[in-house]
Amino acid sequence: MSSSIQKVAIDLGDRSYDILIGRGLIGASEHFQRLGFKGHALIVTNETVAPLYAQALRQTLEAVHRRVDMVVLPDGEAFKQWDTLNLIFNALLERACDRKTVLYALGGGVVGDMTGFAAASYMRGVDYVQVPTTLLAQVDSSVGGKTAINHPMGKNMIGAFYQPRLVVADLATLDTLPQRELSAGLAEVIKYGPIADAAFLDWVEAHVDALMQRDESALAYAVKRSCELKAQVVGKDERESGLRAILNFGHTFGHAIEAGMGYGAWLHGEAVGTGMLMATDLSMRLGLVDASLARRIEQVVARAGLPLKGPDLPAARYLDLMRVDKKAEAGEIRFVLLDGAGRAVMKSAPDALVAEVIESRTAR
Amino acid sequence: MSSSIQKVAIDLGDRSYDILIGRGLIGASEHFQRLGFKGHALIVTNETVAPLYAQALRQTLEAVHRRVDMVVLPDGEAFKQWDTLNLIFNALLERACDRKTVLYALGGGVVGDMTGFAAASYMRGVDYVQVPTTLLAQVDSSVGGKTAINHPMGKNMIGAFYQPRLVVADLATLDTLPQRELSAGLAEVIKYGPIADAAFLDWVEAHVDALMQRDESALAYAVKRSCELKAQVVGKDERESGLRAILNFGHTFGHAIEAGMGYGAWLHGEAVGTGMLMATDLSMRLGLVDASLARRIEQVVARAGLPLKGPDLPAARYLDLMRVDKKAEAGEIRFVLLDGAGRAVMKSAPDALVAEVIESRTAR
Repeated sequence: MSSSIQKVAIDLGDRSYDILIGRGLIGASEHFQRLGFKGHALIVTNETVAPLYAQALRQTLEAVHRRVDMVVLPDGEAFKQWDTLNLIFNALLERACDRKTVLYALGGGVVGDMTGFAAASYMRGVDYVQVPTTLLAQVDSSVGGKTAINHPMGKNMIGAFYQPRLVVADLATLDTLPQRELSAGLAEVIKYGPIADAAFLDWVEAHVDALMQRDESALAYAVKRSCELKAQVVGKDERESGLRAILNFGHTFGHAIEAGMGYGAWLHGEAVGTGMLMATDLSMRLGLVDASLARRIEQVVARAGLPLKGPDLPAARYLDLMRVDKKAEAGEIRFVLLDGAGRAVMKSAPDALVAEVIESRTAR
Repeated sequence: MSSSIQKVAIDLGDRSYDILIGRGLIGASEHFQRLGFKGHALIVTNETVAPLYAQALRQTLEAVHRRVDMVVLPDGEAFKQWDTLNLIFNALLERACDRKTVLYALGGGVVGDMTGFAAASYMRGVDYVQVPTTLLAQVDSSVGGKTAINHPMGKNMIGAFYQPRLVVADLATLDTLPQRELSAGLAEVIKYGPIADAAFLDWVEAHVDALMQRDESALAYAVKRSCELKAQVVGKDERESGLRAILNFGHTFGHAIEAGMGYGAWLHGEAVGTGMLMATDLSMRLGLVDASLARRIEQVVARAGLPLKGPDLPAARYLDLMRVDKKAEAGEIRFVLLDGAGRAVMKSAPDALVAEVIESRTAR
């Protein structure tokens, strides 16, 4: 059972839902029970997470659903594609799962994104619940209803905006998270301060060491505050027609790193960490932020154990990869840049200037 | 240019749109112009329709969009699956199409369903327009936002509810429609009377010969009235949580015929025609309709040139295939049955009774 549970509400009319944050939530059936589900449950997880938490979740859900099935996917961003998604559809159809079936995404961002898109598409839409087990998924990808798979020509190119019915972030799952993935998750935590809340950047600076040491109260606050800030943005712009794009700070450069290296070589959070430094550099070269803010962000990224330089790809390759980003319009790359601490703006920039940033920020 | 244009409005709040019906609409850019699109256009069509109408649509759209591209899919229900859908994604990504891109579905139900799902999923959603070129698509599948692909284990199992921005039904395209496909389209026209409008069943009885001879004013009225009836139902229940399921009259048996014979062997409309007779038989055996109504429906289906008996598959095979229907719940098949003329109800029925219907309605 969980001791202290925090709740963040995502306000989206009839698609509203809660994020619950606390230790031991996977073992507490009452939070799932409350949703009044009537059908089967299908747990979607991966081969890394299954041995750790699938049995506990299954036991909990057996008190909620009359039948609980499971499908175990291969682990990793390289598998975030159609063939793996189809394993979920096969599992649903082999078990004759109907429209009342509920999918549970037990895992990190890849499992969450694929399970969400499977739920959006199976019989044109069934319910799903996010049970994120990585810091990155708890602070970012499990919240807000962005679901997708990758296409060989671009990341997250095929997907849907489709909200879960509940997000259950069990802090106990972070105990088993490899240090590299903890760092990757911290990249998304660090992100929120510069774009939306200068005070949260101060807090992260003061607590990044505690976070790296998995101090539970620090982690609980980081997850809660990240979700609150994301909830504010998503509540105003669910389908990313404007404001929501600021949550992609660091992601345009980051996606180029991920795609350029082959999905899975860099963790998403690592690429975002380096991408934020590139975007900050570009903001500085455009006169939007001063060197002291750029230095602060670089230091906190460094203390989070994240790479400070991108991989050694030609600047032209970065630019090509960024032109297929979903924020691009008519071939023009739209960057999320900083306009002082706690404020983001969308802007394009001359290729030559972007190339300068890349050259100075890649490991040669 | 088109002479007389009819308009049916689909009222779905901020997802509302018009259906335009008339001769020559593909050549009239003003209806497309009015939507104020800013991005590229991608025409999605198939190898049968492309030589007939693609050039005309392209020319029209060149007055609306700064760039018009085209992707030509193989023709047929057998191709309504992931690999073909991916041809659309490839075309979009190869041309670096952004979120402002508009997809145009030029073809029948298969092209419309796949283009709609591609639009729903590409970058999590872009706009699309339906330009249906078959009677079936004009009276049914292009209206209401149901999009999908088939899965080897079930028809339309993977898809989305995603509304088009406009439906343009050019009656001139029916001139080139093979007679077999005209008949298949008439099955969906016939459908609306028994489930929703007894007076329309009277009208169809009086005009089925004229429709078979492609009398233009009869076709125009059949398309308009079918769309009006569909609009009423969809306006009340966009996501098929209840009422909308009545539009699947004949489809539960019909899907079993299509899947059991292999997609494409029977046309969808042919399977629905025979499926309606099976569903009417079942309604009669349950005491919901009398023999005279059943006889009327059978006669109009016969006069529309549709098969009166299903393929010779064992009743158990039909039942197995129907249990994976999207309307099934906990393995129980939910049939759309008639409760007198002009009124449909959702009901289950004992397997033995359903088997009797199948045995008496299959060609042995």
